[in-house]
Amino acid sequence: MAPHDELILRRADDFHVHLRQGEVMALVAPLVHAGGAGRCIAMPNTVPPLTTARAVVEYRDALSRLEPRVEFLASLYLTAGLTSDEVHRATDAGVAGVKCYPRGVTTNSGAGVEDLMAYGPVFAAMQERDMVLQVHAEAPSNASTGISIMNAEEAFLSELGRLHASFPNLRIVLEHVSSAAGVAWVERMDERVAATVTLHHLTLTVDDWAGRCHNYTKPVAKLPSDREAIGRVVIAGHSRFFLGSDSAPHPRADKEGVSARPGIFTTPILMPALAERFEQLGCLDRLNDFASLFGRRFYGLPELDAPPMRLVRRPWLVPASYGTIVPFRADETLTWTISP
Amino acid sequence: MAPHDELILRRADDFHVHLRQGEVMALVAPLVHAGGAGRCIAMPNTVPPLTTARAVVEYRDALSRLEPRVEFLASLYLTAGLTSDEVHRATDAGVAGVKCYPRGVTTNSGAGVEDLMAYGPVFAAMQERDMVLQVHAEAPSNASTGISIMNAEEAFLSELGRLHASFPNLRIVLEHVSSAAGVAWVERMDERVAATVTLHHLTLTVDDWAGRCHNYTKPVAKLPSDREAIGRVVIAGHSRFFLGSDSAPHPRADKEGVSARPGIFTTPILMPALAERFEQLGCLDRLNDFASLFGRRFYGLPELDAPPMRLVRRPWLVPASYGTIVPFRADETLTWTISP
Repeated sequence: MAPHDELILRRADDFHVHLRQGEVMALVAPLVHAGGAGRCIAMPNTVPPLTTARAVVEYRDALSRLEPRVEFLASLYLTAGLTSDEVHRATDAGVAGVKCYPRGVTTNSGAGVEDLMAYGPVFAAMQERDMVLQVHAEAPSNASTGISIMNAEEAFLSELGRLHASFPNLRIVLEHVSSAAGVAWVERMDERVAATVTLHHLTLTVDDWAGRCHNYTKPVAKLPSDREAIGRVVIAGHSRFFLGSDSAPHPRADKEGVSARPGIFTTPILMPALAERFEQLGCLDRLNDFASLFGRRFYGLPELDAPPMRLVRRPWLVPASYGTIVPFRADETLTWTISP
Repeated sequence: MAPHDELILRRADDFHVHLRQGEVMALVAPLVHAGGAGRCIAMPNTVPPLTTARAVVEYRDALSRLEPRVEFLASLYLTAGLTSDEVHRATDAGVAGVKCYPRGVTTNSGAGVEDLMAYGPVFAAMQERDMVLQVHAEAPSNASTGISIMNAEEAFLSELGRLHASFPNLRIVLEHVSSAAGVAWVERMDERVAATVTLHHLTLTVDDWAGRCHNYTKPVAKLPSDREAIGRVVIAGHSRFFLGSDSAPHPRADKEGVSARPGIFTTPILMPALAERFEQLGCLDRLNDFASLFGRRFYGLPELDAPPMRLVRRPWLVPASYGTIVPFRADETLTWTISP
């Protein structure tokens, strides 16, 4: 087989994924492995959210039972009730990070924070234990100040900058970076600040989710210039931009209808679709580091102890659905397939 | 009743409405009257499109039979086959205008134009007969040149400017103006150039159609600053900005699902919802001229020969649907009602 018809890759680290609960969790957890990841950080915006170290550990263990081939990590949900003691307990238990949601900006963010700087003691404890803060970096929309979903990320950067200045040793991840402004901000910061990058923000623009509910997520895919900025740092192999899919499954009934919940389900197609996209961007040689080196280095995690995988150039028709969940690029044919 | 609890208004002229065909047309045509309009221009993007004077007249007559209380006008669809002779025939038959769709930018625009300047003889004939050109002013999206649905209107203005310079006496309407750039451009032009303004572009921003299929239309509602620019000229009572609802009914099945067709159905709530919105903007006193003076003057039409209507401040719960069609602001309560 010609060199460009086969890729030998380490299994991916997905530093941001939503795996839900109950039936959806049972369906989705095995698909983490099927999509090419070997380790992931599950987000804590379950119902109720994971607000204690114990809840995070139980969730992580439940996921491991569902798919033993994947190393599941998980995060703690930052709420007003979180104490520095709980941060210490979480660190001791190997919890991967603390996730911060501005209140009300996305799925199950109703318990999120209103003012980052009110959490000083928590951030101090995290900094002391070198625990990563994962930030959903969007300001709530406010027409009177000109904030909409199109510039919500940019509008949040000044607050994030203040946080970084106040806790210079706190490691911060701007999750699912979606704008040229967000990319530029992370580039300007030092090695304590990074960003996760999703498959869908590398692929879509606003045109792609207009009238197409399964491509709608938060933060929304933005302008061609925003997508280009995200592609540019990936092409450059910038080590502070790494994979976090933000794959977010919702049953079809919660997407198709009067209102669509935000979220794009990329888990089952993650590595084949990323290979296709990286090849389109002319940077297939960057995929391995993007998906399985830069992120673990930032998080201080060891190399994954798992056999490598083989992607082959073979058409793969993405299923119309997995159970009740419609995946990203449903019914489209990808150019790469994970060889079993 | 206190002066602000009752409005006596002329019936509105809606200079841009989609009334469809068959069952949908039979359902929608009477709702033009119910929503407070007494005259309207029906758009020609039927299937097949209305490309001859005869087809337009037949369509107009069919509408009149369905709702005799409304004066229906209609437009001719600009295609490559349109001749100056046909323009003359249309003018003789009282056809209200010629509608120009860039190819592929919205519902049933597959027969639309690719290059405005190719239609010189048609525009010359229209200019000679003082016939109005109605333009869907959006450039097709093109990521490589940075054009998305968010700036598609702005990107079309230079072409529209060339057209106006080439045919300075041709009356041009920039339909459903949706951007600050579009508003500013119309303001800068002379009295041969005007814009229609929709209820939904006065009301919504991008946030309102993200994940809400019934608020999705083309051109899309844009940023708070765009909505504010449209509100500003309405508040100022600028006489070259007048009502064209672009109400565009689609059966629920074509809106809710994997893909939503663009279009917002405002016909049945048009004047009550406009009264509410104008009151929010503090310019209720501008409603009458906006809805029934500025447009007919631009089009050179006589005052409508119809009894005035009375709006009263009385809560009105907008129906969840009209047949299979979900209206704008379904299930919401409006503050104004048309008194029977």
